Amino acid sequence: MTIPSHATTVLAHSPDDQRDGRRRRGMQNRAAVLERALQLASIYGLEGLSIGRLTADLGVHKSTVNSLFGSKEALQLETVAAARRVLIDQVVVPALGSEPGLRRLSVLGDAWCDYVGADVYPGGCLLCAASAEMDGRPGPVRHAVQAVMREWIDILVATTQEAVGRHELREDVEPVVMAFGLNALGMAANWQRQLFDDDDGVAYARSAWHAELQRCSAPTGPRGWEQPGAP
Amino acid sequence: MTIPSHATTVLAHSPDDQRDGRRRRGMQNRAAVLERALQLASIYGLEGLSIGRLTADLGVHKSTVNSLFGSKEALQLETVAAARRVLIDQVVVPALGSEPGLRRLSVLGDAWCDYVGADVYPGGCLLCAASAEMDGRPGPVRHAVQAVMREWIDILVATTQEAVGRHELREDVEPVVMAFGLNALGMAANWQRQLFDDDDGVAYARSAWHAELQRCSAPTGPRGWEQPGAP
Repeated sequence: MTIPSHATTVLAHSPDDQRDGRRRRGMQNRAAVLERALQLASIYGLEGLSIGRLTADLGVHKSTVNSLFGSKEALQLETVAAARRVLIDQVVVPALGSEPGLRRLSVLGDAWCDYVGADVYPGGCLLCAASAEMDGRPGPVRHAVQAVMREWIDILVATTQEAVGRHELREDVEPVVMAFGLNALGMAANWQRQLFDDDDGVAYARSAWHAELQRCSAPTGPRGWEQPGAP
Repeated sequence: MTIPSHATTVLAHSPDDQRDGRRRRGMQNRAAVLERALQLASIYGLEGLSIGRLTADLGVHKSTVNSLFGSKEALQLETVAAARRVLIDQVVVPALGSEPGLRRLSVLGDAWCDYVGADVYPGGCLLCAASAEMDGRPGPVRHAVQAVMREWIDILVATTQEAVGRHELREDVEPVVMAFGLNALGMAANWQRQLFDDDDGVAYARSAWHAELQRCSAPTGPRGWEQPGAP
């Protein structure tokens, strides 16, 4: 997994794509429809994201949305892809600006907690909800959700591995196990916030994330664990 | 929260209820329909649990299911209640047989991991999925899911509190924070198993659950932490 490749796909449309006015307007429509699709899917699920619901909500003709996406499945797939770009933009990209390894793992935790706590979607993290919704429904949409979540876990595993390689985390840390535990915290924070309208989980997750990094820090690491929020 | 009161509601129908043959057959039908409703809801969600889908699946007339439940919402509410009984039966009741406090908290972790790993439902823990599905949909079904999950968290909090009170866990352990972290592990195990068909998360969760209890054990507790599986 190469983190920079994710970052370069964010907002992948270059100015060159926009020379043609009709195409630009189409893209703007598409972006506006996808923005709304993300919000509706976070509340009603990807299965609840019908072209009918979307057109009724947007007050446009069904043919408009149909011409942009063609089918419910295509709309669902584009919505998952858009949710992936939001996750990259809000959680991964901020971490890429920090030093690789332990420091980046720390920033990933803060950025994810910020994202969970920021009401990016009205119904909470769309990818968390989509995981639970699609896990028992074989097909391309499940596959797309799997791929995004696999990417996310791979980022946690790779960054942990990097921190071990840099002797910032103890040698006996198993990256897949640590990634499992860190991911569990953010998902539970989203769960608590959404189901109970309770923000405390975000604070618990942030604190537990940093505590786990501190607990697993190598005693002789070149750069020890830093307090959350340290520059 | 009184744990024993949950246990006594499991299979609450006494033999006295069953004197009348028609009533007994009705109850059997109801139990059979609910059993199937649990399975379908774990795959298609509570919103996907229509009376139409259920009758088609069971090969019975719509009036049969309608006469038992009356409405989709009533069916959803009864399905949540049935899922609660399964959780109590498979996770809470086994723990009630063990000593209160740290030992019970340890057994709760094992029982929950067993439940997550046991394919109780074809689509994974129904209550985990229902949490994500219903969190943005106000109404009685969301309220019912909230109530069951609140009960579950309260059991973890109360048992942790008990372990602190018995000086088995350190005095500085905050029960709500520990309950958050333990709950996160089981939910993540279910997520990994369902989305990726990957059992490793169950093993990670079990191991992390016991490691957390060990880490937070009071050094001078009357009964220290025991290895998982110890009698």
